[in-house]
Amino acid sequence: MTSLRAATPLSELSIATLDDADPLRAVRDRFALPEGVIYLDGNSLGALPTATAARVASVIHDEWGVGLIRSWNSADWIGAPQRVGAKIARLVGAEAHEVIAADSVSVNLYKLIVAALTAQPDRTVVLSEPSNFPTDLYMIESALQAFGGRHQLVLAPRDELAARIDDDTALVLLTHVHYKTAEMHDMAAMTASAHARGALILWDLSHSVGAVPLDLNGCQADLAVGCGYKFLNGGPGAPAFLFVAERHHTTLTSPLGGWMGHARPFAFIDQYEPAAGVDRYLCGTPPIVAFAALESGVDLHLEMDMQIVAQKSRALAELFIDLVAVHGAPYGLKLVGPPRGAPRGSHVSFRHPHSYEIMQALIARGVIGDFRAPDILRFGLTPLYLRFADIAQAVAILEEILRTEAWRAPEYQVRHAVT
Amino acid sequence: MTSLRAATPLSELSIATLDDADPLRAVRDRFALPEGVIYLDGNSLGALPTATAARVASVIHDEWGVGLIRSWNSADWIGAPQRVGAKIARLVGAEAHEVIAADSVSVNLYKLIVAALTAQPDRTVVLSEPSNFPTDLYMIESALQAFGGRHQLVLAPRDELAARIDDDTALVLLTHVHYKTAEMHDMAAMTASAHARGALILWDLSHSVGAVPLDLNGCQADLAVGCGYKFLNGGPGAPAFLFVAERHHTTLTSPLGGWMGHARPFAFIDQYEPAAGVDRYLCGTPPIVAFAALESGVDLHLEMDMQIVAQKSRALAELFIDLVAVHGAPYGLKLVGPPRGAPRGSHVSFRHPHSYEIMQALIARGVIGDFRAPDILRFGLTPLYLRFADIAQAVAILEEILRTEAWRAPEYQVRHAVT
Repeated sequence: MTSLRAATPLSELSIATLDDADPLRAVRDRFALPEGVIYLDGNSLGALPTATAARVASVIHDEWGVGLIRSWNSADWIGAPQRVGAKIARLVGAEAHEVIAADSVSVNLYKLIVAALTAQPDRTVVLSEPSNFPTDLYMIESALQAFGGRHQLVLAPRDELAARIDDDTALVLLTHVHYKTAEMHDMAAMTASAHARGALILWDLSHSVGAVPLDLNGCQADLAVGCGYKFLNGGPGAPAFLFVAERHHTTLTSPLGGWMGHARPFAFIDQYEPAAGVDRYLCGTPPIVAFAALESGVDLHLEMDMQIVAQKSRALAELFIDLVAVHGAPYGLKLVGPPRGAPRGSHVSFRHPHSYEIMQALIARGVIGDFRAPDILRFGLTPLYLRFADIAQAVAILEEILRTEAWRAPEYQVRHAVT
Repeated sequence: MTSLRAATPLSELSIATLDDADPLRAVRDRFALPEGVIYLDGNSLGALPTATAARVASVIHDEWGVGLIRSWNSADWIGAPQRVGAKIARLVGAEAHEVIAADSVSVNLYKLIVAALTAQPDRTVVLSEPSNFPTDLYMIESALQAFGGRHQLVLAPRDELAARIDDDTALVLLTHVHYKTAEMHDMAAMTASAHARGALILWDLSHSVGAVPLDLNGCQADLAVGCGYKFLNGGPGAPAFLFVAERHHTTLTSPLGGWMGHARPFAFIDQYEPAAGVDRYLCGTPPIVAFAALESGVDLHLEMDMQIVAQKSRALAELFIDLVAVHGAPYGLKLVGPPRGAPRGSHVSFRHPHSYEIMQALIARGVIGDFRAPDILRFGLTPLYLRFADIAQAVAILEEILRTEAWRAPEYQVRHAVT
């Protein structure tokens, strides 16, 4: 990989002013970031907090190595899903007892979709939108299989969704911030639309939590899931979380009734009896080493003012959009998703016929973003560890790649299975 | 905790002879074991391999911290479930492409139970045994819910199981080694009984893998699941694994069709299309930090001759049983499960009306075993890191507790929620 080398196209003075005025500028030091890299993919895998390695090492050496089985009690491993869930609750506008960390987003989607459908036997439609994050749609398909073909998935474009909710709609399942375009649903309005027709709503917060302000209870949301390894910096494949509003605690139950979701898991009785509250959405034994990394990432977020984080996210996005309008548009880069100033999530995406090759050229120069099929360049904007100068430099490098057509080099034409 | 202090009741010379002749005696040094502890709970949570901390630290520092998102390809994170699965396959008598590491035992049970029932719409019974490990029974209950009440769970005592399989039996689900008693099913015979009536069989290997020889394909087994955190030493809550015999790869599919089980996960298309082979049993994103610890534990096992491991397991069990017959039976301890010399798993259990208090007294003296309700003392026998001298010393301490009735001390009477 070559080092970062292009000059910034903006006045260095004005960029420096933005960074000097950034109330989060010291937070960057809380992350281990490699030299020579501008990391614009923290929306896919969040960077490593410096505290995490020591936290995980302590869990391994002290709690596992020395404490052994005793640590289920003495180190409160058994309480990890509830403890981390309660912390995440503070980031999503929920009560501590309404959130639990467990399994993956996909598995948690299945639990909540089936729970919602089971509780409403007279309604048969799950409503979502085309090009929702694939696993959301796949898990709806999976959940519908469990009902023997009586139910159907209806996909409607974003601007028709509210009108498509009717008395047969059991559940509306939407990703709050779109994984490609950063479009953001109006959670309060859409939740109200669902409730007006008696439907439940399930929000996937995977691209929201840790990046934009969230107020699940303020919006009267029913159900939610979210990801631990993106903006929460919980590590690759970190445990996910789910939210069930307290008013649904006794009426909904998990279709995956494993021993950790039992009312008395250590009574070892043959009959399943669901635990009270969100505990019933646990299934198997929680992965404690992975929980240690997740909790470290979450703890860092709890030190932040999420309004300030969201403000910086918007400022980073606006700078990126403004710079690309000047330095990328002449080469065919087109903004995808919300225009400057509109509500959005914390990433920006652009369309170009050669996005794949351009992203390879960027990565080779230390600017790490994402290609998303078929033609999207996606850049994650993580307010905790990105500087405005990083954005300016990334766009300068992007401009150079476009101007010199460096992306045409043979080594950038080869497609990998995963990008 | 007081230190270990009782003298061994056997001749120290004869015990030393057993340890000197142990072909696995050097393997103990590959584990980080705390001073002053005889760890007889490795069947619940395996001890920490010394190589694991460095392996996990490297994944965190180098792969996550420096490699960031690139490590999905460059460090083959994306291949971890298949890579670790292929390694586990060698421990269970399967082909590499028949095993995948993923999720928890509970979630994997659900996948395979539903898959087996879906493939056999004309059969409606799942057969298991009472006092199977609870989550196995709970996940059967969960799976049956997905079929709208058409199916039923039938529980039959162990000696009646084969006779209870009939033309309506879709699936026989058994835990190979019983979690409490260490009773071991004859996998080949029971599998043949299931097949004779056209039923499928699913073996839970949680208390077998890494401790007793396994030959899934030699027994013509159909399906299996197993645990990563017991004898495999993969860390608390480590990812689990599942096995699907190749002949079922195209006819069975997962009810949890998440994006990682898609034929082309990074095509991001709206319609689910299951991957070929066992890959379709993946669901969400694999927890990479947890996989690193699991793989370290599995790698250690691959260096071992499992026949030698199993021989030492039996020898440890026979010594334990012999010593308790002399030093525990006079105080009311009764062996539970297979008698000396019978086929068994790698733990021994005894019944006593005051098992809970006795176990607390043992733990306070550094002998860590398990209490299992209502009245079982359970001791795990892990051949890789236990010495014959440990067994002798543990029984000596047990004898002292029984003889002096030290278990009557007030501090051992308090029940904790988890033991």
